Amino acid sequence: MVDVDPSLRRELESLNRFLRVKPLYFDFDEGVFVWLDTRLIPFKEVYRRTADYRRVARAIVDMEIRGAPAIGVAAAYGLALAAAEAASRGGDGFMEAVSEARRRIESTRPTAYNLFWATASVYNAVAEAYRKSGLDAAVRAGLEEATRIYVEDVKGNVEIGRVGSRLLESGDTVLTHCNTGALATAGFGTALGVIRYAWMEGKDISVVTTETRPVLQGARLNVWELRKEGIPFKLIVDSAAGLVMSRGMVSKAIVGADRIVSTGHTANKIGTYMVALAARRHGVPFYVAAPASTFQLDAGPEAIVIEERSPDEVRGVISEAGYVRITLGDVEAYNPSFDVTPPDLITAFITDRGVIEPPFDVNIKRALEG
Amino acid sequence: MVDVDPSLRRELESLNRFLRVKPLYFDFDEGVFVWLDTRLIPFKEVYRRTADYRRVARAIVDMEIRGAPAIGVAAAYGLALAAAEAASRGGDGFMEAVSEARRRIESTRPTAYNLFWATASVYNAVAEAYRKSGLDAAVRAGLEEATRIYVEDVKGNVEIGRVGSRLLESGDTVLTHCNTGALATAGFGTALGVIRYAWMEGKDISVVTTETRPVLQGARLNVWELRKEGIPFKLIVDSAAGLVMSRGMVSKAIVGADRIVSTGHTANKIGTYMVALAARRHGVPFYVAAPASTFQLDAGPEAIVIEERSPDEVRGVISEAGYVRITLGDVEAYNPSFDVTPPDLITAFITDRGVIEPPFDVNIKRALEG
Repeated sequence: MVDVDPSLRRELESLNRFLRVKPLYFDFDEGVFVWLDTRLIPFKEVYRRTADYRRVARAIVDMEIRGAPAIGVAAAYGLALAAAEAASRGGDGFMEAVSEARRRIESTRPTAYNLFWATASVYNAVAEAYRKSGLDAAVRAGLEEATRIYVEDVKGNVEIGRVGSRLLESGDTVLTHCNTGALATAGFGTALGVIRYAWMEGKDISVVTTETRPVLQGARLNVWELRKEGIPFKLIVDSAAGLVMSRGMVSKAIVGADRIVSTGHTANKIGTYMVALAARRHGVPFYVAAPASTFQLDAGPEAIVIEERSPDEVRGVISEAGYVRITLGDVEAYNPSFDVTPPDLITAFITDRGVIEPPFDVNIKRALEG
Repeated sequence: MVDVDPSLRRELESLNRFLRVKPLYFDFDEGVFVWLDTRLIPFKEVYRRTADYRRVARAIVDMEIRGAPAIGVAAAYGLALAAAEAASRGGDGFMEAVSEARRRIESTRPTAYNLFWATASVYNAVAEAYRKSGLDAAVRAGLEEATRIYVEDVKGNVEIGRVGSRLLESGDTVLTHCNTGALATAGFGTALGVIRYAWMEGKDISVVTTETRPVLQGARLNVWELRKEGIPFKLIVDSAAGLVMSRGMVSKAIVGADRIVSTGHTANKIGTYMVALAARRHGVPFYVAAPASTFQLDAGPEAIVIEERSPDEVRGVISEAGYVRITLGDVEAYNPSFDVTPPDLITAFITDRGVIEPPFDVNIKRALEG
């Protein structure tokens, strides 16, 4: 049994009721980090556990763990495990060993911002405790800092859920695109968190989820999460969102965001923009749910760079049989990962600091700078 | 060598320059019907040949041949082959054998309108010739009628291409959705026929094709046809059409149609409506290419019924390894095959009777009834 601050443990326990779907956590009794291998979802549910930070690093590289907040939490616990391992060999070279582990963890996904922020936080906590109070304090500080990162992410998500749930009522059918749930965050989720919160409050909600080509986060991950919660849903191909709205089968749309700039322009999973266009045409409210940390207040839409990923994602799919090709391997394919939804198509932002309504160029700064 | 009217043979030969991609045809030298097995496209190019109408019927059932006009042509040649087979057994019970074959062919795809129209035409031609002039004339009449159906479809497509090509200019990048090419018609194609005609005229055209989930007609069939012609193209997931337009990567959009009613409301492959919404937002002209026979002049939008197909199409994909599941087999999936694009999003219709511009409620009737 690993020891951390009792008030932190209590906070963690108080969050458990929001974490019926729990894809990553620290097992304090066994002293191991536990995660769900998302590569196998929804076909197999395999939890993996380790006390070895190298195994955590491999899980990030191999995308057993994915989604920026989830990666941040895994990296944080990974570095905390590295500190415990180094301490078990005694004080000689302790911080050197922690530094070495940090470099190794940071090399897993070099563009993930959350990862670097998380490892820096844990590293600094370990270093300060070691300097002040020695090895045992350092190990405990590392684990506490990782747990704090985990708790803060979940708390932020739950707050987004609480705020957003007020916009949903019994009888709503909510369309969502891509996975923004427990499998993309430390737990709970953003857009899917809003749906989850409303459902936990007893609202009679149903969901239409797109499959979300090319990586099929809807067909693979949303399907699994919605089933776990018991929320009724229908899966559609991405291009059916317009028809579904034209037939009045959807009353609201909620999506997540990868980056929101000061004007309200929102970069999110490819296809979000087309959902927003259809929603506007049919008067379906279109909400974007994201924590305050997703907003980039000092940038306009020109700052948004569209990441282009491997054409193999378009040339094939992840299936029950693994990756299979749907067309010739040398076909020229264009695979932009994100698109940009302009603010005139967005009804409101749902954040952990409240709902932000238009005019966004004024109200985003007012809500988040204040 | 089977004998038909020399002027029909000459017309057939004159069309050959438009049929560099020739997925179905009658081999007059061998007296067999030949078709490309579209289930294997783009991975394998297998032409099948038979003089047995039962084998043609099986090819329709098993979807080796698909697309309403293509099915019509196959059914017509199938019945012509049945007449030849029956005649080879002598005059006793000739028309009974032809009737029996007709029933068998008509039972293959019971909702395909073109199929019934084609079998009725060939049957009537055979019956009349038999009554007037006997067995040899009947066999010849069946083959001629089937060939006439084939020639008329190709000629209509080529005319759509000629008319539509005037709307394209060198430098255009044309977005298309679903397969409307040689693999869906007797040859040449409608929307893809317009692109093909412009390319044959030497215009420097490039194409962006969606993959067209769930059945992937874009990723499988368009990719194959565009390669055959040498037309440069890029494959995208359906939900990337909005981004591609927002970045100015597309100058025109052309799609086909399954049914167009008097108001101009157009039923076409699921996703067409979302492409039209994005095109409107970005000022990209959006054209619908279809023969006059696709227009239902006596009906309004309320007459359009949206066919719902098996949820297994959404739960899986056709891949190099055959059908594979992308999610759990019992997931509730909604699989509408078509959506309806309203007339205000359509720039013009491209038909074998010319280009029809708004106001469509007046101009469609004027162009097609006149």
